[in-house]
Amino acid sequence: MIILGIDPGFAIMGYGIIHYEGNRFKPIHYGAIKTPSQMSTDLRLKEIYKDLCDIIDTYKPDVVAIEELFFNNNAKTAIMVGQARGVAIVAAANKGCLIYEYTPLQVKQGVVGYGRADKTQVQQMIKALLNLEKVPKPDDVADALAVAVCHAHSGRFNELFKLK
Amino acid sequence: MIILGIDPGFAIMGYGIIHYEGNRFKPIHYGAIKTPSQMSTDLRLKEIYKDLCDIIDTYKPDVVAIEELFFNNNAKTAIMVGQARGVAIVAAANKGCLIYEYTPLQVKQGVVGYGRADKTQVQQMIKALLNLEKVPKPDDVADALAVAVCHAHSGRFNELFKLK
Repeated sequence: MIILGIDPGFAIMGYGIIHYEGNRFKPIHYGAIKTPSQMSTDLRLKEIYKDLCDIIDTYKPDVVAIEELFFNNNAKTAIMVGQARGVAIVAAANKGCLIYEYTPLQVKQGVVGYGRADKTQVQQMIKALLNLEKVPKPDDVADALAVAVCHAHSGRFNELFKLK
Repeated sequence: MIILGIDPGFAIMGYGIIHYEGNRFKPIHYGAIKTPSQMSTDLRLKEIYKDLCDIIDTYKPDVVAIEELFFNNNAKTAIMVGQARGVAIVAAANKGCLIYEYTPLQVKQGVVGYGRADKTQVQQMIKALLNLEKVPKPDDVADALAVAVCHAHSGRFNELFKLK
């Protein structure tokens, strides 16, 4: 199974494509879509849409796993990141992908095994599971790979996660 | 000039297409894209994207005017509406439309002439300017027509509004 994990962001959108079979992982490709702040919102969103469509066309993921957003109080940031996340979802949906959403808690549980794991633990586990020489940077890329790994593991945790 | 105005929303996205020439308005088509809450997020966003693309293909607007979002404290709602707004922007951008964004304050100024106008005043002005028999419902539709009218008027107010 090929899984595309997405860590949604506006300036930086992390993505990671992994192959998962027989409980073994293989990283296929990962990186970040970056759009400069001096570019207009519509062109940035168009760029994100196009790049994600290209990634999906190239790597043909069986499923797309995308992290849910949580903001406590900054509604302005929530709107900006929400817009980018909507674009990511619609790009995947227009390409006919199956889409699964995971909360940050579910990602930690799915990768490390418990929801209170810190960022470093998640990154080290990603490095180990995917047999990488170092933790991918920026953090958004490691986070995207973590969502993909979470989805791979979620088959075993479906009952726990109450996935759709 | 044909202007497509959009009042972004997730459950209800209002749209209004107007023709503006020589200081005269003509409503062409208006309505709302509604997606049911029991549908999954990805399918709802895909529906919004498709419907907006169809509207743009049919009415070929010269520009798209879309209202900016403001939320004080509900980040969860901000994310949901932000996602839908991102999808609306990327649909218009992918169709090659010029996109302009207006704050609620600018819309009131652009339609009624002052920023503290209330909703009823804006709606009555839309009804009068577009020569409609009654105020379009739901409010999202009237709001979308207001954004379109705001853009039409903004040519005169460019200096004031400091538009991009």
